[in-house]
Amino acid sequence: MGVEERRQQLIGVALELFSQRSPDDVSIDEIASAAGISRPLVYHYFPGKLSLYEAALKRASEELAARFVEPQEGPLATRLLRVMRRYFDFVEEHGPGFSALMRGGPAVGSTATNALIDSVRQAAYVQILSHLKVDNPPARLELVIRSWISLAESTALIWLDGRRIPRAELEAQLVHDFAALAAVSAAYDEEMGALLRRMLKEEPADGPFSDLAGRLISLAS
Amino acid sequence: MGVEERRQQLIGVALELFSQRSPDDVSIDEIASAAGISRPLVYHYFPGKLSLYEAALKRASEELAARFVEPQEGPLATRLLRVMRRYFDFVEEHGPGFSALMRGGPAVGSTATNALIDSVRQAAYVQILSHLKVDNPPARLELVIRSWISLAESTALIWLDGRRIPRAELEAQLVHDFAALAAVSAAYDEEMGALLRRMLKEEPADGPFSDLAGRLISLAS
Repeated sequence: MGVEERRQQLIGVALELFSQRSPDDVSIDEIASAAGISRPLVYHYFPGKLSLYEAALKRASEELAARFVEPQEGPLATRLLRVMRRYFDFVEEHGPGFSALMRGGPAVGSTATNALIDSVRQAAYVQILSHLKVDNPPARLELVIRSWISLAESTALIWLDGRRIPRAELEAQLVHDFAALAAVSAAYDEEMGALLRRMLKEEPADGPFSDLAGRLISLAS
Repeated sequence: MGVEERRQQLIGVALELFSQRSPDDVSIDEIASAAGISRPLVYHYFPGKLSLYEAALKRASEELAARFVEPQEGPLATRLLRVMRRYFDFVEEHGPGFSALMRGGPAVGSTATNALIDSVRQAAYVQILSHLKVDNPPARLELVIRSWISLAESTALIWLDGRRIPRAELEAQLVHDFAALAAVSAAYDEEMGALLRRMLKEEPADGPFSDLAGRLISLAS
């Protein structure tokens, strides 16, 4: 194997191990053994566990950011639901590592790690914004999108802690939460109101947003 | 001054400095100078900056947890609004330190730090739950409360980053967000539906929850 090929293989093996257990519990020996190479050879490619962890995290960040990419076709709620499904797929594939990373822990807190987390949040923000077709987002829209991304993170973390609610329900709920956060913002701000109306106009009568609205109205009566 | 008195004074001085700038930028020399004592004397009370930071963070955590304590009187929305005001007071008083802590950074990531953050979240959860008068919270209610607490955190962090939306608006919005998250959950779950109806039954017709409902209905029509 060439140097770059070997590095990429090691990153893949490390990401798999760092995903399945708290990164603090994964040793270089295990990574070497899983990759079928010697411990000194691991150190030949990466100076230490932290640099291998950061490389694995970088790959995971790119993967996660990619899951927010969604074609701009069809109703918005359906697009968001597909994004949330891929988000929870990722969370399920990388459960313990995702949890350890987002809850903070001895393995994290480095500037590089935080920059990677921020880069995923920023990629998610840019993606969602692009679906709303707004060039100069008002501060209230930015708040809705960014706080919704953070809500998706915390919902996923709470889900991982016991899995007491089926994930499909949470994926749908987060799509509804997006509409709910936008509606709360729109209730007091005319610009957001216009944006919300435009957003909902293209939603089908049998889509998730209309379903929610119908249920809320029957709940209120 | 006695030993404990001096320690408490140093913690107070350190908390003030750690609140106003990123904790990484605060030196022991500055803390000593602000407390009017020598650098070696600081080390007499605390082995290093991390232990002083953790002690300051412990005091801040207790302060923040206390701001969630609210008498169980009057409409729920009004209580939540008072809690959010005190929450944003805290965030404003400790802005840069709060931001550095919650965004992660070189100063954080220790087990003690994470345990303190979790303790505040848990105290907030227990407080909010006590207002809803539910003994055995269903998983969906726990999710609503915990994800709302995380929404308050992320909203506060986004506010600190530029303060582009008046904080009074965000405080009110978070109260509405609570109702919105509960309503989304209730729309698909009978137990949450019953809980929400009981919660809203005691809200006055001119209160924040009714105001929001009226605005949403007029937005939809």
